[in-house]
Amino acid sequence: MTPPFADPETGAAVKAADRAHVFHSWSAQGLIDPLPVAGAEGAYFWDYDGNRYLDFTSGLVFTNIGYQHPVVVAAIQEQAAKLVTFAPAFALEARSEAARLIAERTPGDLDKIFFTNGGAEAVENAVRLARLHTGRPKVLSAYRSYHGATSAAINLTGDPRRWPSDSGSAGVVHFWAPFLYRSPFHSETEEQERDRALQHLEDTIVFEGPQTVAAIVLETVPGTAGIMVPPPGYLAGVREICDRYGIVFVLDEVMAGFGRTGSWFAAERFDVIPDLLTFAKGVNSGYVPLGGVAISEEIAATFATRPYPGGLTYSGHPLACAAAVATIRVMEDEGVVEHAAALGEKVIGPGVRELAERHPSVGEVRGLGAFWAVELVRDRETREPLVPYNAAGEANAPMAAFAAACKKSGLWPFVNMNRTHVVPACNITEAEAKEGLALLDAALAVADEHTR
Amino acid sequence: MTPPFADPETGAAVKAADRAHVFHSWSAQGLIDPLPVAGAEGAYFWDYDGNRYLDFTSGLVFTNIGYQHPVVVAAIQEQAAKLVTFAPAFALEARSEAARLIAERTPGDLDKIFFTNGGAEAVENAVRLARLHTGRPKVLSAYRSYHGATSAAINLTGDPRRWPSDSGSAGVVHFWAPFLYRSPFHSETEEQERDRALQHLEDTIVFEGPQTVAAIVLETVPGTAGIMVPPPGYLAGVREICDRYGIVFVLDEVMAGFGRTGSWFAAERFDVIPDLLTFAKGVNSGYVPLGGVAISEEIAATFATRPYPGGLTYSGHPLACAAAVATIRVMEDEGVVEHAAALGEKVIGPGVRELAERHPSVGEVRGLGAFWAVELVRDRETREPLVPYNAAGEANAPMAAFAAACKKSGLWPFVNMNRTHVVPACNITEAEAKEGLALLDAALAVADEHTR
Ligand SMILES: Cc1ncc(COP(=O)(O)O)c(C=O)c1O
Ligand SMILES: Cc1ncc(COP(=O)(O)O)c(C=O)c1O
Repeated sequence: MTPPFADPETGAAVKAADRAHVFHSWSAQGLIDPLPVAGAEGAYFWDYDGNRYLDFTSGLVFTNIGYQHPVVVAAIQEQAAKLVTFAPAFALEARSEAARLIAERTPGDLDKIFFTNGGAEAVENAVRLARLHTGRPKVLSAYRSYHGATSAAINLTGDPRRWPSDSGSAGVVHFWAPFLYRSPFHSETEEQERDRALQHLEDTIVFEGPQTVAAIVLETVPGTAGIMVPPPGYLAGVREICDRYGIVFVLDEVMAGFGRTGSWFAAERFDVIPDLLTFAKGVNSGYVPLGGVAISEEIAATFATRPYPGGLTYSGHPLACAAAVATIRVMEDEGVVEHAAALGEKVIGPGVRELAERHPSVGEVRGLGAFWAVELVRDRETREPLVPYNAAGEANAPMAAFAAACKKSGLWPFVNMNRTHVVPACNITEAEAKEGLALLDAALAVADEHTR
Repeated sequence: MTPPFADPETGAAVKAADRAHVFHSWSAQGLIDPLPVAGAEGAYFWDYDGNRYLDFTSGLVFTNIGYQHPVVVAAIQEQAAKLVTFAPAFALEARSEAARLIAERTPGDLDKIFFTNGGAEAVENAVRLARLHTGRPKVLSAYRSYHGATSAAINLTGDPRRWPSDSGSAGVVHFWAPFLYRSPFHSETEEQERDRALQHLEDTIVFEGPQTVAAIVLETVPGTAGIMVPPPGYLAGVREICDRYGIVFVLDEVMAGFGRTGSWFAAERFDVIPDLLTFAKGVNSGYVPLGGVAISEEIAATFATRPYPGGLTYSGHPLACAAAVATIRVMEDEGVVEHAAALGEKVIGPGVRELAERHPSVGEVRGLGAFWAVELVRDRETREPLVPYNAAGEANAPMAAFAAACKKSGLWPFVNMNRTHVVPACNITEAEAKEGLALLDAALAVADEHTR
């Protein structure tokens, strides 16, 4: 089933059953119109009506090796034939090997892996580990963040998705992380932003009471909220604050990990070693649901003779672990991580900078690896966003028009608030990346119309 | 790779990597000794040392169709080749079809399916749906229950696994559900237990303030906590109370659903229709991580034009959904549900009742379908449990000795506190079930030694 491919009848049936029975994430069920997808390969997917799309989203930023990688598909088929499922309390070859390969790549001594099904559960368990390790109740996290939708994870989240599920503070305190373009600290340089953000964080800790703070949870590079690459020295400064106050430092690399930033983990890019590191998505490109927490020796030791009170039926699922083993090997063999770094330096970075020069609607571009944000504004001077924060309906029309223009041209864009993110598969070719950037270029003309 | 099979070297390597890198659920990491498992088929699995075990646990009560069912393995392989992963916001054939097949089997008008990766996330979303639908904050759940280990799910849980993660009440109020053998209400008959339990529940609601109660969450048949089959009329009574006070009735069928009790959903056995029904495990026998919530038309309608504020990267994962489609078809084609019902009536039920007659350590047996508890006591008169509630170490020695005796004989038992559960695959043959019961019979001699 490769494109051009047309089978509109099947497409209609798939959509009818979807509308009758599938309740979709983050959506008003009566207002959505989900595109029926027939197939996908590499950086592309296609519908049932003969349309093919270049995917600049990697799904929800998880297919780091692209769609249908034959080596990983074969590994899944093989493991399915061998031992498709088994309970968590046993030692299994695929599980042991996945844990070993992940531990080899995580920074520092984060050598013990607790497996979950996805990112939210990874964050839930990181929070539990930190609270029990320190005996302290509070967790600090940043505004402009996303950590998942289970109860603790959504309370940590610092975007509007938290609001409807926010059960009081539940021990979470939000602080402001650095973001020079819209500086919460009125900074004018990266050094100022770094220093002021660290001062703000430490002040917050001092006023919350350091002995009440179990953990600081940060996305190494905040993803969904806008790919705000932290200024040099910020994460090292947070590490130092954590050490000074005995606070567990949790880096959430559910989106940033496994090659996305051009290194195995984004923490490496900033020379920092957290105490806990959460992952999911890229670990096996989402081919089978898998996430987890990499745990430092010190925190693991807390649970040497005292039981760790957390678990889930599918912890270390063998099919998911086999997919991770194959994915990591593929990334290694094919140099996917290095490729992502080069894409950022030589293709996507220069490409989006060029767009910024030519389009008045582009306020800022920022990123690294295969992880870039293009921030759209009404006015470059005032930096007024192209649409207001958390806009819906009519207020969001300019972004909706921009997205529609992309899709019409064959580019599937990642759109969040007033931004589009360039987050293709990490192994996209240079030609494919350039093709996508050219389509973005054309669609940005629609955004330009909404500038003042 | 079929047994007898011996490759102790690989087994040792698998275990060494496990101990070096895998952080296990619910365990003191330094005190566990996970058995390396080489393979599994049907009702059996085997290690690397030539030992084969009859599995009376179905993993964690999830492999309802047994291990390595060839039809489901083939379906997973086929879907992997076709479209192994894709993001949630699209319409996909496997997702649409799984939702349709599940909705066809859920009771009443629970026809909209929100997919998750497992049971805890299903419960999390049921709670969010109920709170937003009613606009009320509190959720009532029962002692002697398990609902998962993410933040909201563990707060609902009514067993000791909650204690270390309990963040205050977080809007959860626990009540006592019926359990005649250890009646919280000093009842002497099932009718009394039912009436008193309903009175207790209603009193609790009245004193909490009905207008503050969003949902009542119950396992239709509480699983891990002891397979306490509710007395006739209890669940219908809860339904009536929910209707009277405008409370959402959530049945958690993560363990009880998909054939376990001898019907597609346990709710059918008690002629009751909840507003939300959570599932996982049996939906695809855990071959690929999958769970979900089946949602009534009325609650779904609340989110027709208002966005549902919850989601997860792998909602409706196509590989997991394809496994569900194949599993449901296999269960239908092979009459697995009917077989489980017959097993309960003709083989396991009579078998455990016979054990109860002959072993002084058996205080009570109870269950239905392929879902039975054998409750062990020191003394049949006083009903003193064979080991104290939540016992560990020396205090738990009698149960540990019983479990060791089972394993030595080739039976892998499900053990929780002072109980062993008979929860084999729902398609286990009569001969296999009888073989397992004979091994239980022998091992119970060890438990008998600890009676007074
Ligand atoms: C940084 C981060 N953490 C956690 C999550 C939640 O992961 P999941 O959707 O698998 O629960 C996400 C998902 O986008 C994420 O980007
Ligand atoms: C009734 C019930 N609900 C929820 C769960 C949690 O499911 P999971 O382990 O997939 O998160 C379980 C797991 O045993 C369960 O038995």
